[in-house]
Amino acid sequence: MNYKTENIKHIIVEKPLKLDCGKTIKDFPLAYETYGKLNKNKDNAILVFHALTGDQFVSNINPITKKEGWWVTAVGPGKAIDTDKYFVICANVIGGCMGSWGPKEIDKKTNEPYGLNFPVITIRDMVNAQETLLDYLGINKLLCATGGSMGGMQLLEFCSTFPNRTFSAIPIACSTSHSAQNIALNELARQAIMADPVWDNGKYIKKNVQPKNGLAVARMVGHITYLSEKGMQEKFGRKLQEKADYEFSFNADFQVESYLRHQGYTFVERFDANSILYITRAMDYFDLSKKFKGGLLEAFKGQKIKYLVISFSSDWLYTTKENKDIVIALNASGADVSFSEITTDKGHDSFLVNEPEFLKTLKGFLDSMHTKFRNEKRI
Amino acid sequence: MNYKTENIKHIIVEKPLKLDCGKTIKDFPLAYETYGKLNKNKDNAILVFHALTGDQFVSNINPITKKEGWWVTAVGPGKAIDTDKYFVICANVIGGCMGSWGPKEIDKKTNEPYGLNFPVITIRDMVNAQETLLDYLGINKLLCATGGSMGGMQLLEFCSTFPNRTFSAIPIACSTSHSAQNIALNELARQAIMADPVWDNGKYIKKNVQPKNGLAVARMVGHITYLSEKGMQEKFGRKLQEKADYEFSFNADFQVESYLRHQGYTFVERFDANSILYITRAMDYFDLSKKFKGGLLEAFKGQKIKYLVISFSSDWLYTTKENKDIVIALNASGADVSFSEITTDKGHDSFLVNEPEFLKTLKGFLDSMHTKFRNEKRI
Repeated sequence: MNYKTENIKHIIVEKPLKLDCGKTIKDFPLAYETYGKLNKNKDNAILVFHALTGDQFVSNINPITKKEGWWVTAVGPGKAIDTDKYFVICANVIGGCMGSWGPKEIDKKTNEPYGLNFPVITIRDMVNAQETLLDYLGINKLLCATGGSMGGMQLLEFCSTFPNRTFSAIPIACSTSHSAQNIALNELARQAIMADPVWDNGKYIKKNVQPKNGLAVARMVGHITYLSEKGMQEKFGRKLQEKADYEFSFNADFQVESYLRHQGYTFVERFDANSILYITRAMDYFDLSKKFKGGLLEAFKGQKIKYLVISFSSDWLYTTKENKDIVIALNASGADVSFSEITTDKGHDSFLVNEPEFLKTLKGFLDSMHTKFRNEKRI
Repeated sequence: MNYKTENIKHIIVEKPLKLDCGKTIKDFPLAYETYGKLNKNKDNAILVFHALTGDQFVSNINPITKKEGWWVTAVGPGKAIDTDKYFVICANVIGGCMGSWGPKEIDKKTNEPYGLNFPVITIRDMVNAQETLLDYLGINKLLCATGGSMGGMQLLEFCSTFPNRTFSAIPIACSTSHSAQNIALNELARQAIMADPVWDNGKYIKKNVQPKNGLAVARMVGHITYLSEKGMQEKFGRKLQEKADYEFSFNADFQVESYLRHQGYTFVERFDANSILYITRAMDYFDLSKKFKGGLLEAFKGQKIKYLVISFSSDWLYTTKENKDIVIALNASGADVSFSEITTDKGHDSFLVNEPEFLKTLKGFLDSMHTKFRNEKRI
């Protein structure tokens, strides 16, 4: 990647944090961004957890990449998550590459970037790190926490580990553990990176190079899974890329080929290959019920959080069935839960694009939670 | 790949063949295998078209790889395609690497392997080459022609181009043109190969090496798409590979990771990377209706072939919908067509594994066609 991330806004987490792998870390950076203002009653804070290749720059222009924030469709003044009303917080996950502690950071012991010396982290480790940010910002209880895809996984873990730190929660297009197919797709991405000789067991980072070819292929895997078959067919079909007929070559004849190549090779400018390995590993390891003998019911037991679970009908990466399983477990554990399946052809990507029904659902729930939370605080 | 293919049974196609790309070829090898005996009436010949990574060794032990033939579940004495009754023929596609003319063969002009100097071929080119084999074997009209996946595409092209050369046809788990998603998945495989520096624009073949890493990743893409989500979940779920808990490393913790790595790295022993590029390209270019102004109806018009179209309920690579579209077009063109959707969790792989309902359907249709064909020949 081509970006410098040293000057990004961050806190140094001084409190020792015991990772799931057994190691304890402290004094590490956690980069974050906020939008809007925290009100006096502190009843308007919303924590957003980002997905695999996301970062803390949810809205406006990302100051590092100079592109729009990844959730600009949902977060901003007058939008579903209205920054004129709400105080929105997002932190870069540990393991990431936008200023938080990750494999491209310098290991103080060796004065070199960690590379594969970085410990294998988990979704819980990510969440534990982010909880410290709430302390720093002086927020005891959030109005809401939300996230899609891996963001939703972090959210489920957050609610399970810190059930009193949010009033409501909106997990979007996620699951409580990866299916074999999702593990396989992540493994494919990892293998693509590790197959690139430039990767060199993660040591490329010391040479200031990047396994571009492998990382680009890994990104193409992602982009295929983010769209539905129907959505891809409507968007690209068999349309040719600026030519009248087949070229009888291996150039990008079809628009969908050109799209994938573009997505792959622009991604390498903004993301660190080792971070993909670490973050996908965390996703595959995630299993909300693993630490509970009683399974999922135990994970949700006793929570007073008000949930809205959202799925997308054409999402084949985190299917409606997987999202419904969350709802079933929440219901069985006596939690307060609503569920909405948004009918759309846009696949897993639906939460990132302009999908009016989704944004309306998000806004309606948030505004209603705000009223309830204020009333609760007043009493 | 590690195999010598010079001594494989083959014919030399002397007749000039004009390829879709415009070039004309002649005197090229076409490798093939037969099982069973052609009877006196020549009413028992079945032509099998193989899929992407298949070859002519349908049944018994493949003499080159020493492994079972790829369709041993369906073809053999007493099996659905009973070699005690039927004479089964299968040819290696041109562009392949099991003895037929392909990118690893020697270009007589340069005395070096073709590599990327091999022309981009099409499904029609493959089929045109194979038709010459029927002449050589003295078979005017087949009892049946069949094939799954790319084999089904060749079959549809064969029926359209040579409507009088088969009495019946069984396209299995295929489509009349690739969807955007299928093009994308093939492009992913191609990009994985081309990302490998060993590939070196296809010139690796002259150095007697193979882009193993890239080819293995390409193969992993395939194996993910051949299984259904449910089938993969049942087969692997989140089971760990010979360990009690997560290893917190990038080794294969999950069985599904181990499976993919194994499939990827054994494949490179038997298949040429350039062949994957050429054959996937042919699949993506395939569009049965392209040469007909009236679309699919025209492609099937006037055919007297009796069709049985078979799809698998959990196949997401060539969905039941895509197979039904073939049936709809055949019906609309007045053809004689049956359709069977086999209910199974085994995904696209269903036609290659022991799927009793499928094999029973195959056998029933073939035997009934045999009776009809004999009667027709008698009249």
